[in-house]
Amino acid sequence: MEFNKIFASKEVQDLVSRYENFIKNHVHPLEQEAVYGSFKAVLPKLKSLRELAKKEGLFAPHLSKEDGGLGLDLTEFASISEVLGKSPIGHYIFNCNAPDIGNMELMHRFASKALKEKFLAPLQRGEIRSCFAMTEPNNPGSNPVHLSTTAVKEGNEYVINGHKWFTTAADGADFTIVMALTDPTNPNPYLRASMILVPLDNPGYKLLRNIPIMGDVGEDYLSHGEVMFTNCRVPVSNLIGEEGQGFALAQERLGPGRIHHCMRWIGICERALEMMCRRALSRQLDPGKPLASQQTIQNWIAEAAASIKASRLMVMMTAHKIEQEGAKAAKEDISTIKFFVSDVLMTTLDKAIQVHGALGITDDTLLSFWYRHERGARIYDGPDEVHKSVLAKRILKNYSQE
Amino acid sequence: MEFNKIFASKEVQDLVSRYENFIKNHVHPLEQEAVYGSFKAVLPKLKSLRELAKKEGLFAPHLSKEDGGLGLDLTEFASISEVLGKSPIGHYIFNCNAPDIGNMELMHRFASKALKEKFLAPLQRGEIRSCFAMTEPNNPGSNPVHLSTTAVKEGNEYVINGHKWFTTAADGADFTIVMALTDPTNPNPYLRASMILVPLDNPGYKLLRNIPIMGDVGEDYLSHGEVMFTNCRVPVSNLIGEEGQGFALAQERLGPGRIHHCMRWIGICERALEMMCRRALSRQLDPGKPLASQQTIQNWIAEAAASIKASRLMVMMTAHKIEQEGAKAAKEDISTIKFFVSDVLMTTLDKAIQVHGALGITDDTLLSFWYRHERGARIYDGPDEVHKSVLAKRILKNYSQE
Amino acid sequence: MEFNKIFASKEVQDLVSRYENFIKNHVHPLEQEAVYGSFKAVLPKLKSLRELAKKEGLFAPHLSKEDGGLGLDLTEFASISEVLGKSPIGHYIFNCNAPDIGNMELMHRFASKALKEKFLAPLQRGEIRSCFAMTEPNNPGSNPVHLSTTAVKEGNEYVINGHKWFTTAADGADFTIVMALTDPTNPNPYLRASMILVPLDNPGYKLLRNIPIMGDVGEDYLSHGEVMFTNCRVPVSNLIGEEGQGFALAQERLGPGRIHHCMRWIGICERALEMMCRRALSRQLDPGKPLASQQTIQNWIAEAAASIKASRLMVMMTAHKIEQEGAKAAKEDISTIKFFVSDVLMTTLDKAIQVHGALGITDDTLLSFWYRHERGARIYDGPDEVHKSVLAKRILKNYSQE
Amino acid sequence: MEFNKIFASKEVQDLVSRYENFIKNHVHPLEQEAVYGSFKAVLPKLKSLRELAKKEGLFAPHLSKEDGGLGLDLTEFASISEVLGKSPIGHYIFNCNAPDIGNMELMHRFASKALKEKFLAPLQRGEIRSCFAMTEPNNPGSNPVHLSTTAVKEGNEYVINGHKWFTTAADGADFTIVMALTDPTNPNPYLRASMILVPLDNPGYKLLRNIPIMGDVGEDYLSHGEVMFTNCRVPVSNLIGEEGQGFALAQERLGPGRIHHCMRWIGICERALEMMCRRALSRQLDPGKPLASQQTIQNWIAEAAASIKASRLMVMMTAHKIEQEGAKAAKEDISTIKFFVSDVLMTTLDKAIQVHGALGITDDTLLSFWYRHERGARIYDGPDEVHKSVLAKRILKNYSQE
Repeated sequence: MEFNKIFASKEVQDLVSRYENFIKNHVHPLEQEAVYGSFKAVLPKLKSLRELAKKEGLFAPHLSKEDGGLGLDLTEFASISEVLGKSPIGHYIFNCNAPDIGNMELMHRFASKALKEKFLAPLQRGEIRSCFAMTEPNNPGSNPVHLSTTAVKEGNEYVINGHKWFTTAADGADFTIVMALTDPTNPNPYLRASMILVPLDNPGYKLLRNIPIMGDVGEDYLSHGEVMFTNCRVPVSNLIGEEGQGFALAQERLGPGRIHHCMRWIGICERALEMMCRRALSRQLDPGKPLASQQTIQNWIAEAAASIKASRLMVMMTAHKIEQEGAKAAKEDISTIKFFVSDVLMTTLDKAIQVHGALGITDDTLLSFWYRHERGARIYDGPDEVHKSVLAKRILKNYSQE
Repeated sequence: MEFNKIFASKEVQDLVSRYENFIKNHVHPLEQEAVYGSFKAVLPKLKSLRELAKKEGLFAPHLSKEDGGLGLDLTEFASISEVLGKSPIGHYIFNCNAPDIGNMELMHRFASKALKEKFLAPLQRGEIRSCFAMTEPNNPGSNPVHLSTTAVKEGNEYVINGHKWFTTAADGADFTIVMALTDPTNPNPYLRASMILVPLDNPGYKLLRNIPIMGDVGEDYLSHGEVMFTNCRVPVSNLIGEEGQGFALAQERLGPGRIHHCMRWIGICERALEMMCRRALSRQLDPGKPLASQQTIQNWIAEAAASIKASRLMVMMTAHKIEQEGAKAAKEDISTIKFFVSDVLMTTLDKAIQVHGALGITDDTLLSFWYRHERGARIYDGPDEVHKSVLAKRILKNYSQE
Repeated sequence: MEFNKIFASKEVQDLVSRYENFIKNHVHPLEQEAVYGSFKAVLPKLKSLRELAKKEGLFAPHLSKEDGGLGLDLTEFASISEVLGKSPIGHYIFNCNAPDIGNMELMHRFASKALKEKFLAPLQRGEIRSCFAMTEPNNPGSNPVHLSTTAVKEGNEYVINGHKWFTTAADGADFTIVMALTDPTNPNPYLRASMILVPLDNPGYKLLRNIPIMGDVGEDYLSHGEVMFTNCRVPVSNLIGEEGQGFALAQERLGPGRIHHCMRWIGICERALEMMCRRALSRQLDPGKPLASQQTIQNWIAEAAASIKASRLMVMMTAHKIEQEGAKAAKEDISTIKFFVSDVLMTTLDKAIQVHGALGITDDTLLSFWYRHERGARIYDGPDEVHKSVLAKRILKNYSQE
Repeated sequence: MEFNKIFASKEVQDLVSRYENFIKNHVHPLEQEAVYGSFKAVLPKLKSLRELAKKEGLFAPHLSKEDGGLGLDLTEFASISEVLGKSPIGHYIFNCNAPDIGNMELMHRFASKALKEKFLAPLQRGEIRSCFAMTEPNNPGSNPVHLSTTAVKEGNEYVINGHKWFTTAADGADFTIVMALTDPTNPNPYLRASMILVPLDNPGYKLLRNIPIMGDVGEDYLSHGEVMFTNCRVPVSNLIGEEGQGFALAQERLGPGRIHHCMRWIGICERALEMMCRRALSRQLDPGKPLASQQTIQNWIAEAAASIKASRLMVMMTAHKIEQEGAKAAKEDISTIKFFVSDVLMTTLDKAIQVHGALGITDDTLLSFWYRHERGARIYDGPDEVHKSVLAKRILKNYSQE
């Protein structure tokens, strides 16, 4: 809040207000049925909200104006992203949800003109969805060089074989970008893989299942697929960037991606804190003695507020650094926010549940959804422990020459 | 383990081994489908396991021999309870699951002969199930004197009106015991309520819904009901104990109940620790470098093992004290284990998930089930914060006369 | 570091470097004897360093140029303050140490011209020292309206009676500002007290003892006095500000004071982190296997670095807000940094000690000094728990009108 | 308390009461001057208390009756040790303080008859004091095989050279047992060292300094020496046990030693909890509103009480296991209590200080002494992190054959 007065321009502050109003008026009423009911059944309502967003000039804030967006830079979009994160379907409505946003950023910079026209353009307009197939069930995600999926060039085609999971939102997507080894024996493991676009109507691709995650099989956008590529053939022109650039592109994709995730998490924290406060004031232990009068509850509120504020400042500074110096220069900053904010997120959700008592563990509020589905925040994109080691080793390097 | 060498007699140790084998051979194979599939669909298989348990002389360890059980005392049963807790359906198989076990203990001591014959006997034989209706959505569970449900005597009947939730396992139960105000204006709030048995085919009773808890609507035994009593009439002879004794009986019921819960939680912790160890050894970060070689993982294993051991000792000592001096004398001990062990439980589950990485948040292991459904452990039977205050005030009393 | 590139102007960055060099070259060699030896014995060396600081144009960075300082604003000084905080005698050397800096800020704004000439001017030049007598042994410091010290007007004099402690640096000071009740029955408790300057050669004043704190009696600047005012007479013209303004002035004094403390704490954290890294790299567990290779150590380094960065951002933003909107508007921000940074401070020091092993608990490093003397950080200026309640109540107020 | 009713025999319970009374009546009045004043100056008073202890039949509870003690076994003595631990000079008064008690246990089992007569007998009678020289400043204490001190046999003598520190209570001791390499090239590093008794009037021995620890140089029993052995010659008959047995003996010495430490720590925790409660009740925030009414304080009291109880149970069970199965069989149990209880100790002391506010950081209570001098508990006898790895590796071994 007070933060925005300093960092965000008047224009961005106005935008923030407009998004806040849109979310409150139009998105809140749909949340429960979207996340606890059938997502597919809600798609028509969501679609009409997207139309409304377009009409109000709020659609796709992350895209350039020529691509139908608002032309915000990374830092400006971060402020918006926090607001959208307050709703579990906020980013979806405005077509800036993961993994689509990451694919848009990637393809915008590295895809061929033909791929852009055929796949990126409808994705940007919100007409189709996409996914990203990287993690493999048989290899630790903490070290991305361990991959088994291969893409062998045969004539004008890549023949892809491999088993992936946690391919978020595969159900209902039109294409995926897959990470596969194109040069598996290269002595430099970071040059072995490439990124290849695969349309999902390809007969060599199969969605094995939507993985049940924390009680939800999920569907459509709210799902995580386990997928199989079996002699899956695509033209070599479906390559994104250069052959062997897979890891480099993944890094490029991850940098802004972590900003997006972190700001979304902060939005969730803000919403959880709001819910905590409202519950603490309305729940009476005895007549005239609300839960909010308990010092333990006050401690939790204060600690949540402090750590949310700290998180926001660190993420915004990191976004700024990425813009100024690039994602590589901000590598340690990105690792820092990854483990710092995911911890704040889970702690805040846990306290919010405790404040809600029995209600907190029901699906009558959003807390249950977030408590379950954001538990992965401390795992995906590299578990917190890996990021701590990355950061520590970088710091230690400053002293090792002494 | 080493603990049992000291506390448990040779006979109990042998029993522990027999239960361990039964669980491994017969119960483990059913777990996934029972908790993630349809519980009702699995009922036939569960029933045949109950038959097997009877045949092997392991059924209903908590009951006296004349009632078809093993005649174990509270401490002996506690050792068995830990083993059963290692499976989410362990207690169910042996008919010593909550809330039935609590109802059996209660009715055994306080129900009329007629009620015992008609309801307790088939319950003990595992032919019917029961539930317990105490918590109300509109009153804080942390203070049990706040109740709105009333039972007004009219002639030979009680007329019950009220709204309850978290009536665990109401779906499929044959009767409930309901806590209702029979003397709502008694100046002593602890004398206002009574416990009354209500058969669930009563037209004045309605199961409104199985409350969706952490993503699961659940069914049958694995459910939590929201129920309504509307001019629900039962004979006054359905009273358990004396009129006005509701709170006293609830306390009596809770004492051993918390031992049962705590030992079950410790069983869950043991299973989670086993899973953590196996995963840490089998997951290779690099060839020859298992996750188990990481010091952070070692810290988690050691801390889990230490806190599990501490939990077990405290719970066993408390069980012993209840046996020796009664539940009232052990009130603070019971508060202590409630908040201490529930914290150990959730911390251990959280670490186990983190060790499993992406697999940990799927429903492919039991961790997801426990992470979600045991989150209530820190809330039900009084939130941890209330128990801490209870304990602290009792300790402070020792010094206040100075 | 990267932070300064954004927030600090080129000029301030250059200043930071100059202070860093001065500290390393001139102050580090004196630290051990100043804090573990006799402070009085080191005074001549400290004095010559102050002369050097003046010569190099680095003395009193917080003062305006006309008062002999560098004319930095609160935010600019904050960046310098972090550097000075890396040494336990950093602020002292540059004459911006508490409680003198607080007294300078207070007197600059509220003291009469005569008091300024006689007391403030030599204080700003570093010729004399001062102290601040507020906390009383018989009243809780967490609530400043509980005071027993009185100042009764008799003719042209105040007659002061009272018992104070934690009058930091009273030993060797030339004057104190004392907080005393001048209107003890005012219905508004916040209007009862006034601030009065007392020269310490006054026969009604007595330094009872330097309170032994965490093993150190201390002396001179490094001491905390227990003092007594017995019919201590001073002219009414020694009043600071208006009569009855005591609390208002105390708040004004505390706002920037907490920025100063917090930035100093962050400096301590930075130094402790440096020590941790150097120790981790130099200590060999086995040949070629430094302590730094242990993942637990890496976790501590990463967590320290992250929380230090978060602290710095929050304090700088708060300083900025005080400058823009005043200390009152930033009240909750000030409470936030108080409890957030003091926790980071003590956690970082504790880990740094653990990394140093047995050496860490000796007085052979500065860690022992800080571990002991900064423990008070979570207590003075209001214990953390009070600040958490302040913040929570303010946040809850946003929702209470709903 | 309730614990003793179960574990301790009626006889031991009576003894506990007698020690409690002795401590309260005779030892409490001396504590402040002993730990904050000159220990040497208090020696005469301490000596007369030892005489009184002898007269009352309470002296040396750990020794057999023929050696002038009470003939308690390890578990019985543990109950006494907790009581003595409530005073920082409790163990000293009754001559069962470290390192003397460890040396007595060691020499009783492994010293020659001549050494027993000359050194052990007067030590047991409390006429002389001893120390134990193991830790070296240039080698990590976490791995005891890293030693540089050597003992070379020349004729009938060992010639000892080496540099030791943290030789507790060296100041004023009559002899030390030193750990030195007698077979430095043995391929098995655990067979390289031996334990040798060195009378401290030996010209080859020098006490370099009492190491200043956390602000205290200390003296006599309350000190930690840095010592040097330079061509220090002692007869080969001063060997304790066999040559090459150094590590084996150190392990034997450590097992019961950790029980003694842990029970002493628990005593400290009990005293800190008592102080916390008294302070919380007596400190008024407002008239009629004691600190004890604050929920945060209640949380701390409850958490301290719970973790103290858990600690006691684990230590008593471990003592029991050592008695039944030997220290080697209890190795992991001993590691467990080491890290579990030292954490409880420091957490409890920290909270007790916070409850005391400004008073808590002064030397006007014992909390400052313990906060400073028990910080080493998480470091000596192997840092907690090492013990966690030991325990984890042992647990993992159970699964590695699968």
